[in-house]
Amino acid sequence: MKALFFDGLIPHFIEKYQIPAPQENEALIRILLAGICATDVEVMRGYKGFKGVPGHEFVGVVERVNGGYPGLVGKRVVGEISLGCGQCEYCTKGMERHCLSRSALGISDKDGVFAEYITLPLKNLWEVPDSVSDEKAVFTEPLAAAFEILEQLHVKPTDKIAILGDGKLGLLVALVMVQYGLSVMLIGKHDSKLAIAAEKKVMTKKLDELPKKRGYEVVVEATGSPEGLLIALDLIKPRGTIVLKSTISPSHDKPTTGDIGRPEVDFTRAVVDEITLVGSRCGPFPPALAALASGRINVEPLISAVYPFDSVISALENAQESGAVKVLLDFRDRR
Amino acid sequence: MKALFFDGLIPHFIEKYQIPAPQENEALIRILLAGICATDVEVMRGYKGFKGVPGHEFVGVVERVNGGYPGLVGKRVVGEISLGCGQCEYCTKGMERHCLSRSALGISDKDGVFAEYITLPLKNLWEVPDSVSDEKAVFTEPLAAAFEILEQLHVKPTDKIAILGDGKLGLLVALVMVQYGLSVMLIGKHDSKLAIAAEKKVMTKKLDELPKKRGYEVVVEATGSPEGLLIALDLIKPRGTIVLKSTISPSHDKPTTGDIGRPEVDFTRAVVDEITLVGSRCGPFPPALAALASGRINVEPLISAVYPFDSVISALENAQESGAVKVLLDFRDRR
Repeated sequence: MKALFFDGLIPHFIEKYQIPAPQENEALIRILLAGICATDVEVMRGYKGFKGVPGHEFVGVVERVNGGYPGLVGKRVVGEISLGCGQCEYCTKGMERHCLSRSALGISDKDGVFAEYITLPLKNLWEVPDSVSDEKAVFTEPLAAAFEILEQLHVKPTDKIAILGDGKLGLLVALVMVQYGLSVMLIGKHDSKLAIAAEKKVMTKKLDELPKKRGYEVVVEATGSPEGLLIALDLIKPRGTIVLKSTISPSHDKPTTGDIGRPEVDFTRAVVDEITLVGSRCGPFPPALAALASGRINVEPLISAVYPFDSVISALENAQESGAVKVLLDFRDRR
Repeated sequence: MKALFFDGLIPHFIEKYQIPAPQENEALIRILLAGICATDVEVMRGYKGFKGVPGHEFVGVVERVNGGYPGLVGKRVVGEISLGCGQCEYCTKGMERHCLSRSALGISDKDGVFAEYITLPLKNLWEVPDSVSDEKAVFTEPLAAAFEILEQLHVKPTDKIAILGDGKLGLLVALVMVQYGLSVMLIGKHDSKLAIAAEKKVMTKKLDELPKKRGYEVVVEATGSPEGLLIALDLIKPRGTIVLKSTISPSHDKPTTGDIGRPEVDFTRAVVDEITLVGSRCGPFPPALAALASGRINVEPLISAVYPFDSVISALENAQESGAVKVLLDFRDRR
């Protein structure tokens, strides 16, 4: 099969990469569409020291199962990306996503979805309802990461919520929160991206028009930039909660920080104001699929471009341009 | 009256400092004993840009009340240190401690307890039960700060708790937690301080003997040092909670950090492991007084030295020595 391989320095195609063999209770999945995530870009900057096939957002078709439920063959599926050891205290408590010896699809020790086929354990898979198109289904994983915030936090109907960053994740968080009828302000730099949220009754503001005022009970930091936390600390009310969503490769900070490195965070302020900071990563697939199936969340306006898999290098470049939101890779004409 | 005055550079005595006049619904309080807190030392290093009389831990006698409940005259009291505006959304929700225009006894815009008399609003005062000696009562404020953690967090009976720092606050947190029957490991640098906790069935370990292992559901960072958070991140389990207790003057980091300044905190790790960080400051007085009155918590072993108020400069120096725990100032022979 054809795969994009990252050797630790640059990504390149391998035309005859070995099709992976499903282990017991695993499925072989043919990729239909893949999404490019900021984490994929970080991975190819050295995050996690990963070598292999990157990519972790996908919708695919089950080609073969090794044991387990054969009725899954031919079904469209999406898949959770963490593979736990199955034995440790985290895995046995249903916290495979936090297994200390886990691998993660396209991120650590497991080939990902920028290839024609992948394998995943059957328990990681969720069947996609017929009413959800491929283009929508590929958003399940990042949308689940947005729902994770509501798994972790008690957000009150009276809370004012600010979301920092109008990238893919910031937009998805805004769309999730606003459908609960919450007061949501999305703060970003790009008129075109803010407009996607404004269309859905999300309040929006440009970062440079933002008053430095402690006005929010909840701030979601999804800028992907080390400075985001400093802005969050300016906006959060005493006893408020900052949700940390940005994963930034320690050795490859964004150019905006230059040689200065990470900003100094004044933790004394978090102590004095009794701020809570909550790290938040992957989330639950079922509410994400349900929101896509019901149409409560429409992700289609987030699609900036769809590239054929053969043009993945151009797609990766496009995904890093400031105007881009979600860039997809299409594998569907490869059969 | 005699008062220690900090002019922004050095603290010095003023022999004829004006006795403060209680405003409406305030009390004039004669100080019996005062405690020296690490925050007082930070204040005299420039924290908060404070000028005035430092000090905020005390037990005193009500001399006079202006309005309110006259029965309080002659009673021994301890007092909460924050004075809110009484009008804003925080004050009207009972969150005076977070009023954005608050003053704080001996810390910001309000003369503190390193003087013969102070004033405080009546609503800040709690009467001290007869069974609680002056020496114990003066611990109410820092003990309340230790109880604050249990106001903020749901600590489970199965949680393993590590407390970083064997200073005053770390010891008090350990004593509070262990009386709930919780599994508590106090980690510090001083055999003599660790021994105080070990006496009360707290497990103890020297910092340099500590395995770098993610073994705790809750880590309380009470080192007073910017490096404490890095150690906390090494010890905390995925989905665990780090309680931030250290307030450090931004411009006067401890000498241990030298010219390096604050350490870079890898927030990506907090995101990936879904760590929660909770800032924690002042706490509720009633459970602290109740624990002192019942004898469930005995703070007397924490008293390193008692100095007459005239020797406050020596007392402040002593309080900063590495072997010292709580240093008290005695005003009782001044009448």
